[in-house]
Amino acid sequence: MQGIEGDCANAIRALAMDAVEAANSGHPGMPMGMADVATVLWQRYLKFDAADPHWADRDRFVLSAGHGSMLIYALLHLTGHARPTIDDIEAFRQVGSPCAGHPENFELPGIEATTGPLGQGFAMAVGMAIAERHLNAHFGDDLVDHRTWVIAGDGCLMEGINHEAVGLAGHLKLGRLNVLWDDNRITIDGAVDLSSSEDIPARYRASGWHVAECDGHDMADIARAIDEALASDLPSLIRCRTIIGKGAPTKAGTSGSHGSPLGASEIEGARAALGWSHAPFVVPDDVREAWLRAGKRGADVHAAWADRLANHSDRETFERRMRGDLPDVAGVGEAYIAGLLADPKTVATRKASEMALEALTAAIPDLVGGSADLTGSNNTKTKATQALTAENYGGRYIYYGIREFGMAAAMNGMALHGGIVPYGGTFLVFSDYCRPAIRLSALQNARVVYVMTHDSIGLGEDGPTHQPIEHLTSLRLIPNCDVWRPCDTVETAEAWIAALERSDGPSVLALSRQNLPQLRTAAGMEAARGGYRLLAAEAPRRVILIATGSEVEIAVKVRARLEAEGIGADVVSMPCWERFDAQPATYRADILPDIDPAALLRVSIEAGATLGWERYTMVNGLRFGIDRYGASGPAKDLYAKFGLTPENITRAVRERLQVQEK
Amino acid sequence: MQGIEGDCANAIRALAMDAVEAANSGHPGMPMGMADVATVLWQRYLKFDAADPHWADRDRFVLSAGHGSMLIYALLHLTGHARPTIDDIEAFRQVGSPCAGHPENFELPGIEATTGPLGQGFAMAVGMAIAERHLNAHFGDDLVDHRTWVIAGDGCLMEGINHEAVGLAGHLKLGRLNVLWDDNRITIDGAVDLSSSEDIPARYRASGWHVAECDGHDMADIARAIDEALASDLPSLIRCRTIIGKGAPTKAGTSGSHGSPLGASEIEGARAALGWSHAPFVVPDDVREAWLRAGKRGADVHAAWADRLANHSDRETFERRMRGDLPDVAGVGEAYIAGLLADPKTVATRKASEMALEALTAAIPDLVGGSADLTGSNNTKTKATQALTAENYGGRYIYYGIREFGMAAAMNGMALHGGIVPYGGTFLVFSDYCRPAIRLSALQNARVVYVMTHDSIGLGEDGPTHQPIEHLTSLRLIPNCDVWRPCDTVETAEAWIAALERSDGPSVLALSRQNLPQLRTAAGMEAARGGYRLLAAEAPRRVILIATGSEVEIAVKVRARLEAEGIGADVVSMPCWERFDAQPATYRADILPDIDPAALLRVSIEAGATLGWERYTMVNGLRFGIDRYGASGPAKDLYAKFGLTPENITRAVRERLQVQEK
Repeated sequence: MQGIEGDCANAIRALAMDAVEAANSGHPGMPMGMADVATVLWQRYLKFDAADPHWADRDRFVLSAGHGSMLIYALLHLTGHARPTIDDIEAFRQVGSPCAGHPENFELPGIEATTGPLGQGFAMAVGMAIAERHLNAHFGDDLVDHRTWVIAGDGCLMEGINHEAVGLAGHLKLGRLNVLWDDNRITIDGAVDLSSSEDIPARYRASGWHVAECDGHDMADIARAIDEALASDLPSLIRCRTIIGKGAPTKAGTSGSHGSPLGASEIEGARAALGWSHAPFVVPDDVREAWLRAGKRGADVHAAWADRLANHSDRETFERRMRGDLPDVAGVGEAYIAGLLADPKTVATRKASEMALEALTAAIPDLVGGSADLTGSNNTKTKATQALTAENYGGRYIYYGIREFGMAAAMNGMALHGGIVPYGGTFLVFSDYCRPAIRLSALQNARVVYVMTHDSIGLGEDGPTHQPIEHLTSLRLIPNCDVWRPCDTVETAEAWIAALERSDGPSVLALSRQNLPQLRTAAGMEAARGGYRLLAAEAPRRVILIATGSEVEIAVKVRARLEAEGIGADVVSMPCWERFDAQPATYRADILPDIDPAALLRVSIEAGATLGWERYTMVNGLRFGIDRYGASGPAKDLYAKFGLTPENITRAVRERLQVQEK
Repeated sequence: MQGIEGDCANAIRALAMDAVEAANSGHPGMPMGMADVATVLWQRYLKFDAADPHWADRDRFVLSAGHGSMLIYALLHLTGHARPTIDDIEAFRQVGSPCAGHPENFELPGIEATTGPLGQGFAMAVGMAIAERHLNAHFGDDLVDHRTWVIAGDGCLMEGINHEAVGLAGHLKLGRLNVLWDDNRITIDGAVDLSSSEDIPARYRASGWHVAECDGHDMADIARAIDEALASDLPSLIRCRTIIGKGAPTKAGTSGSHGSPLGASEIEGARAALGWSHAPFVVPDDVREAWLRAGKRGADVHAAWADRLANHSDRETFERRMRGDLPDVAGVGEAYIAGLLADPKTVATRKASEMALEALTAAIPDLVGGSADLTGSNNTKTKATQALTAENYGGRYIYYGIREFGMAAAMNGMALHGGIVPYGGTFLVFSDYCRPAIRLSALQNARVVYVMTHDSIGLGEDGPTHQPIEHLTSLRLIPNCDVWRPCDTVETAEAWIAALERSDGPSVLALSRQNLPQLRTAAGMEAARGGYRLLAAEAPRRVILIATGSEVEIAVKVRARLEAEGIGADVVSMPCWERFDAQPATYRADILPDIDPAALLRVSIEAGATLGWERYTMVNGLRFGIDRYGASGPAKDLYAKFGLTPENITRAVRERLQVQEK
């Protein structure tokens, strides 16, 4: 009924149901339901050039409802992107195909974000829209002038993070963010009204959004609603009333089409209903040509942009930033460290982080900071970073509000957009609130720096709800996430340098509330090795003390006591397990020699869970930590309560050595 | 200006600023700002009896803005609760005082929930309000007829979880939930409008709430607004326009009064402004008497209720349920297990969980289940559990919607309310979404059972966004949280029995999507020991294979191959680390003898992160797992891709043994 455009939409439907059927796994309902909307968007509005999915000024398209992955695979394929090929699609959800179960940014150019964990795609898109306005403020309309589009389902809108994302986008008046809501009134468990009675448009309006509505199966009406959204200066929600699994004769409009293959007879019926007589994975020439034309729609605009870039006075800076090559991080950092060595400071590592950031943010315009309403506690704001607001998108500091998860997801979006290296702060204990986004930073290879202060019972009186115990090692467990717990000003600076120099994943900086002495007396980026000998034994070596962060100071004191008794002890500072584990075996064996603990006792000291430390102490070593919840009181009293004192540890080490001698 | 009631409010203000000053730590702003509202609530409305804070039909009061803990300590003290004493308050935030930095339910009767992690108190209150209506449906107005009150700040309302809690409460029409919003327009970073532009009342109305408003410093207006809320059948938000730090001469109305001691001169000025001439921690007799009268206000109602209970036909059941003594869990469970042993089943452990739940929910009315929109995948719904809806609060199954965090917090609230043992499901990978609430289950000693299915790459095609890697051990790291990964139908039943029999904390059940053979051939609650010898070596023992969940089947196959080569191997199933670690040393040494790995090689097999397994394998043992992200493909292909096959593991074990022999 809708001519070639309708056939183009049906091509998406057919590929979706055929690929899911071939894989015997997947979600046909959403692609079939949103095929018409996606066709209008990609054929008439989305600014892109299939020949160059990396074009910096392309519109960003985020499939927040990532389970409908066949929608984006079909779109990328049909518009003529190099990948996925039809073979890739035929291998949907098989090992080796880039067409994974959920869309993965590291598998296919054109996939802007890895989605599937609900709500996060939407929230990452908010970060992309921030990045666009921020870069626009710095580089102007000639270089940066694009939109961010999202397709989201009821799941994305029901998740808590949606509230944070909507609030942030509304507050920052991100008028270039347009969300197409697949309003199909179905969730996995059944009708949406089984679990929700919300007036969603009213909620969006309450946060400063424009809301448009359309029949999601009427191309003209879809276009009208999008035009309405584009005419608004506000971020917009476009409610698309759709039928999930549209075309499937018995399963359309039901959760039966959501997450399972339709089955042969249902597919046959859908082909008949859609008037789609082609064999599986076959796209007729006229449809293919129409889609390829859409894929080339942006070529002229792209070429004009490339001309403007070529002649732009800021070309080098823009290209450098979009490549993610930071200015001389090491140079800036090492100059700053030289100053520390000349004039040592006893400060909390959160303060040390601020001091490092003062130098780094002044030199590196790519850094955009922020905090989830703990600016003065996280020490994340520097002189160089003025507020980024709806009135000043060029600012470099975001007051994220009490939105830890939203902050983390927005940072992912900024990092994925490119041109920005985001960092943001909260308390380490609230890393739990943003943990799903930290995981996505790591999975997506996104350079995001998490500034997590108040990293142990050392925070004192706020008590167990605020004292991290399990958090350090829980974060260490996340693959591709570097967790840093520096012991002083120098290590903090080295951690910042290392975090910024890696471009393929996130780093978490766990920082103290309490003051710590500067233990390092020489430069050398020692921390970058993850673990290193801070002090070598003087008496014959019997002990290796391994510690992180604020407990390195304790280890140094334990060592002094042991040495005074003629017991030689190394102190190994181990600020980053991941980096240490990546060192050559010879280096690791030098720091932690493979000698029987009976001859060389290994001892760990960290004010957190001991599980996992066996890797470094051996099972028969000693581990000092906290395997229960903390308590409320001054930090000094808590360290005593939990036995983390030089006296207590020295005594226990001495006793163990005596037992071994017997 | 407001007579004795105003003096009563000022007593709260004085105690708050004096205690924070003495501790040199804490948050005076909120208690001072909300003192008038709290006074009206506790003196005129809240149903309680200070003589018995455990009275089952008391109103629940949750201080969601937990940093304002001095508010609740002052209220409990002034109304005549046995604790806190004035000495306790003078020792605010010191080790040993029950007046911890944030309110802790395990420290003081009258504190219904541990709060501080923002947004969760509010969301737990939703669970309490559900519990009230549910128990009312079963026991009637004579026994259950109370309200749930919340004091929440802007932080609670800005957090993502608030959206989930508000949506759930509105959908379930929880008219007995009343939230007093401390609308002081201040956050830590400054004015609320630094980070938010939301029309909060409009958002609440969009979710089916009633919104009232008042001047939070006008007692009559506060009462009028509360009366308005009580007249509505909807959950209600009462917007109380307040001044943070009310009374402080220079810091009131600013974030300067939020989280730091006011200082001596500011306190002096506040005393003058409030007309409060008493020394620190001194409460004049007239004020003390007025407050004590408020604490006895509920005594008569309590006595009448006790009479009704004494004569009630359901007294025993009601008392049993409120005590948390479950009916014969072991008996029901063991009868069910006997059936399994007689008729073994090869099913996924998620299905095995459903089978166990069929027996348990039929016998134990206390169980109230649910899922975050994955009912058919989590297998959480049984015949005995019909839907709990606004039309049928007596139902025992909650369609939580796509609200993992809100579900978990609501379950905490139900468990804390008493009378209910909640369980709820999502995918294990999304345990990250509810992790902050799982931590609070554990910290609060709340019996909540998390049914986490799709527990590894075994889920297959959904790919890395949905495949847990780090989650099992991340959860194991949370103190007081039992993590179960059963290997078959029998262990799954044993895990359920153990989870229900513990009354002092949560349990997480990690369950497979894929089918697993029934390996157990005898009863005996073996799993309850955490780890046990499933199969003993037949040939001379050289190897101990330790595995969990779906990998126990692999261990059994590896053992068969090794034994065929004359290499004796035990198979240890280790479904719960926490339980195994709690066994006597003699038991643990029997299962995992302290013998040099060169003589007895220990091998772990688990389709997740290997970090932490050193505790059981020794560092020189072998660990088979996955320390990177998963992939998309059929489960069988993924196990091969990640080397988790009997062939691969057997080969590696054999090679290691040969090396050791050299």
